[in-house]
Amino acid sequence: MSASLAGKKIVVIGLGLIGGSLARALRAAEPAARIHAVDRSAAALEQARADGTLDECSHAPGLACREADLIVLATPVLSIEGVLGELAAVLAPHTIITDVASVKGAVVEAALRVFGRLPPRFIPGHPIAGSEQSGYGAARRDLFKGRKVILTPQSDSDPLALAVVRALWALVGAEVLTMDVVHHDQVLAATSHLPHLLAFALVDTLSQQGTREEIFRYAAGGFRDFTRIASSDPVMWRDIFVSNAEAIVGILEEYQHELIHLRDLLQARDGGALQELFGRANQSREIFLAFNRGQPAKPSE
Amino acid sequence: MSASLAGKKIVVIGLGLIGGSLARALRAAEPAARIHAVDRSAAALEQARADGTLDECSHAPGLACREADLIVLATPVLSIEGVLGELAAVLAPHTIITDVASVKGAVVEAALRVFGRLPPRFIPGHPIAGSEQSGYGAARRDLFKGRKVILTPQSDSDPLALAVVRALWALVGAEVLTMDVVHHDQVLAATSHLPHLLAFALVDTLSQQGTREEIFRYAAGGFRDFTRIASSDPVMWRDIFVSNAEAIVGILEEYQHELIHLRDLLQARDGGALQELFGRANQSREIFLAFNRGQPAKPSE
Repeated sequence: MSASLAGKKIVVIGLGLIGGSLARALRAAEPAARIHAVDRSAAALEQARADGTLDECSHAPGLACREADLIVLATPVLSIEGVLGELAAVLAPHTIITDVASVKGAVVEAALRVFGRLPPRFIPGHPIAGSEQSGYGAARRDLFKGRKVILTPQSDSDPLALAVVRALWALVGAEVLTMDVVHHDQVLAATSHLPHLLAFALVDTLSQQGTREEIFRYAAGGFRDFTRIASSDPVMWRDIFVSNAEAIVGILEEYQHELIHLRDLLQARDGGALQELFGRANQSREIFLAFNRGQPAKPSE
Repeated sequence: MSASLAGKKIVVIGLGLIGGSLARALRAAEPAARIHAVDRSAAALEQARADGTLDECSHAPGLACREADLIVLATPVLSIEGVLGELAAVLAPHTIITDVASVKGAVVEAALRVFGRLPPRFIPGHPIAGSEQSGYGAARRDLFKGRKVILTPQSDSDPLALAVVRALWALVGAEVLTMDVVHHDQVLAATSHLPHLLAFALVDTLSQQGTREEIFRYAAGGFRDFTRIASSDPVMWRDIFVSNAEAIVGILEEYQHELIHLRDLLQARDGGALQELFGRANQSREIFLAFNRGQPAKPSE
């Protein structure tokens, strides 16, 4: 198999926001690929057949994945082990596997339990793209355009498999990078998992206030932006938090120390130290923005 | 004085994002008002004279406020006491005062220290509008359109003064509401001050990581939205935190308890409880969105 996807059988397992967006992007970028999706939801499959995205679809991965050239696992991370178990019996020797989970260590461990090792043709991956919306209805074929995709191949990964997975993401407009598994999970704990936890926690704290209705009535645009990610899918995020708990707890505890420090400054009315800290945060965010100029904006609500 | 602002002398003290946006909105909505601004920055005043917003401008409030019909205090909250001190000698009996600070208790206390009481013609106010950008360069005449403005009059407030301040905000497209001072400061601590604190704290925590450059490089749109408010003006926010410290510490401590609870759930890998909490946050945010449909979106970066 060459790195080209023309004429290849690609199976997307899980037709939610990410799997659905990938299928739509692939259909647009490589009309000659055969795209097969697997999902428990008949509605998502029907919609994707009706809009011309899919050539075939199924409710279970077993038969669907026979003779697949490329399988993309796009289900919540804790379900990946079960899916791999169903695939084990039907995988062809040439089949390449990748996934899109936001946690990579847990995916590698799931493969170890099912196959005894991470198969050389299984290249774990993670597109850094998403939305607080979920499901095939929110899928967009431009979701990955200009976004980064992190692959975490291992030393014995098959070079052709890596080339195919790179080609897959390049085809839909993403920039592909590689990273070590542990490092990926630490970086994502800090940049994505912790912010989601903080947003869920804020909305939950405020919703327990006696004045909750009034609080929400007077909250403004800053609050809307800050809590946007608290509208994300609970099952997907449950799986991410359980799968990457150790790294998330590590950065969460550092954050808790920072909050204790800030509470002390507030109680002391230490305006000088607060101003210094806010100024430092201003500058750090400028560095973040400088790294991310030209990134597409999020769709607005 | 009627509630109409035509022909009236309006002095805006502090020509930053809020004061500047109000001056521009007033110029557009009531060309017959005489708009005078006070700012220490010559650049802001020159820009606002050049673009036709101002009739007159000064660097100090004393002379500027003689014979003013309406004074709008739009400086950081801790500077309001000093400004009121300068005004005390020049205020005409008919002059109405309002302000735009995000904390109302501290403004009332500043007036008590300067005047011995909150003058009946001083109607404290707070437009719930803003941006992480600051300064006259970021001022927009539509900043208040469709936004809420909370006034906190007292039982002995002058009804005409209240009517004029209501008319001011209605003129620039805002919806005007009234609220008790203490209640205002508690609601804003929860909906605005705490989220800003959490965003400043997150950016600051991550900037102290050894892998900070990589963290910012791989952060995506969710992080950008979540931390947007950490780009806000450090001096303005220092003043808000010092002025409303007690209410902010109260809600911050509730938030810290929630984080401890979440950390425990993470350490126990309690997926069921996490999913339940995230689902509850989903629903609460839907309530927030339902209250705020049709609110203008924030300008994007």
